[in-house]
Amino acid sequence: MAGPFVAGVDLGGTKIQVVAVNGTAVKGGSRTATPTTSAEDVVHEIVGSVRLAVQQAGGRLSGLDKVGIGTPGRIDGRKGVVSHSGNVVGMMDPFALGPAVSKELGGLPVVIDNDVRVAILGEYERGAGRHYKNVLGVFVGTGVGGGLVLEGKLREGRGAAGEIGHTLVKPGGRLCSCGRRGCLEAYAGRGCIEATARRWQAKKRMKTELFEIMADRRRDRLTSGVIAAALERKDKMAEKLIDEAIKALGIAIANAQNLLDLEAVIIGGGLGDRLGKPFVDKVAEAARPHLHVPDKPPDIIPTELGDLAGAVGAAILAGG
Amino acid sequence: MAGPFVAGVDLGGTKIQVVAVNGTAVKGGSRTATPTTSAEDVVHEIVGSVRLAVQQAGGRLSGLDKVGIGTPGRIDGRKGVVSHSGNVVGMMDPFALGPAVSKELGGLPVVIDNDVRVAILGEYERGAGRHYKNVLGVFVGTGVGGGLVLEGKLREGRGAAGEIGHTLVKPGGRLCSCGRRGCLEAYAGRGCIEATARRWQAKKRMKTELFEIMADRRRDRLTSGVIAAALERKDKMAEKLIDEAIKALGIAIANAQNLLDLEAVIIGGGLGDRLGKPFVDKVAEAARPHLHVPDKPPDIIPTELGDLAGAVGAAILAGG
Repeated sequence: MAGPFVAGVDLGGTKIQVVAVNGTAVKGGSRTATPTTSAEDVVHEIVGSVRLAVQQAGGRLSGLDKVGIGTPGRIDGRKGVVSHSGNVVGMMDPFALGPAVSKELGGLPVVIDNDVRVAILGEYERGAGRHYKNVLGVFVGTGVGGGLVLEGKLREGRGAAGEIGHTLVKPGGRLCSCGRRGCLEAYAGRGCIEATARRWQAKKRMKTELFEIMADRRRDRLTSGVIAAALERKDKMAEKLIDEAIKALGIAIANAQNLLDLEAVIIGGGLGDRLGKPFVDKVAEAARPHLHVPDKPPDIIPTELGDLAGAVGAAILAGG
Repeated sequence: MAGPFVAGVDLGGTKIQVVAVNGTAVKGGSRTATPTTSAEDVVHEIVGSVRLAVQQAGGRLSGLDKVGIGTPGRIDGRKGVVSHSGNVVGMMDPFALGPAVSKELGGLPVVIDNDVRVAILGEYERGAGRHYKNVLGVFVGTGVGGGLVLEGKLREGRGAAGEIGHTLVKPGGRLCSCGRRGCLEAYAGRGCIEATARRWQAKKRMKTELFEIMADRRRDRLTSGVIAAALERKDKMAEKLIDEAIKALGIAIANAQNLLDLEAVIIGGGLGDRLGKPFVDKVAEAARPHLHVPDKPPDIIPTELGDLAGAVGAAILAGG
């Protein structure tokens, strides 16, 4: 019989990604949509996905040792409580996610941590970061998350370290989802990119096929796939938006580099992974003029685990 | 007989500051002008100042155990060699400063390190930083230097960490001494402030008494004292320059804080120490709107050791 397994869960606003690992190998996985009805339904869906991933790995729930969960929001790791998670139903107010999942799994140990922290843990231990000891992870998705490993240890600070997304890159600049102006996220986060595109479209600032591509794909958001397709068609607005994202990423990464002298910067997240190495190379090029020691730049590279980084990191968190 | 002593030397572009310490107490000190004739004369002056400091402490050179030196430039600590120090004569090309001072002191052990690194070491161990484990030091002098202590350890990176002075605070902004545009140092470094004042004066952009005060004091530079005196007279240009310095410091410090979630930021350096707590409080106010977690700001405080931080840190470096 296969196993024992550890399950890693990446709970996102739109999907739940689970992996079942044995030792350091991913043996099975599953992905489902995140319920939008209630927190209890989310818990139920997580447990179903964990079962499926373990089955895919050739095992059964009885062969499961532990579960790790990465989730957006603020975390009380000791109590397994998540709060301030605006993208998952019922988790804005404190919700005891760990205990709830544990209960449905017959008391199995469940640990939880922040989604960005587990993703950098995944990439650092088993992905693009495994050859380095000092790494910044920049996750360009709906927002821009960050995680910092210094001398082999995840930087926690007083609980809020890693927020490179809220580096001020342009004083008085574009409005950010955090309510301030000119943050990196205001230029590179998919959510702010979409808001800007809609504003430019309303003002007829320039022609774009972005919204036609969105409609053709039956989407109601400018997903990473929509943006990538528009870039392939050399859409002017998409090109301008991504060019500004690249410049903003270059500034924020160079500032972090000048302060910390890192070995590597790993760029991932939904949009980062979708646009891949050509995008990452342009970010490296945009950072170079701002580096104080330009002859010793950090390696600026894409993720290796892609959208599995969070789930793999969650499994590592749980000891897998 | 008093002693044994350890001497700490802060070698600057204009002055050499020495302290003689016994245990953790500063027992004597001396300050002289830095020779501008040759590196050999600088070495000679250092040795004379060390002798004077030890005598002031009630001891003799025979009671001296070790010497630590903080110097601008790049350091090869193992060989005691300094290079790329543009502000001290004969130390742009590699110069074996440690061995040269040691030789004149009859073979006494001499260790050297970068001036900013020893200053943050001094403040961290025996100054304003001694109650914290995670501290950024920002030294606002002719340039803007930085030093970072994380989890009680000086951040070295690959040898170039701490360069907060070259945080980009305004894309395409003011020319910096490093040749790039929009760095913190371009707004807050005394050298760049002076260059800007001279440019504005030439263009008659606004009235100022800065250069009259400079002439009255028989100075050829806009020293920290000249700038402070102009501020006291509510000189418009001085106020505008320092206001821009404060804003730039606020941005750079907030960016570092968002990434690292520090406990404290210590502001010193020639200009920072001269303008003191009112200036530091304004910097804290300027940083606040850019903090991602504004309800948990770092303590932003002045140095305690002032212009002795470098010499005390150099003594600590040598085991004092």
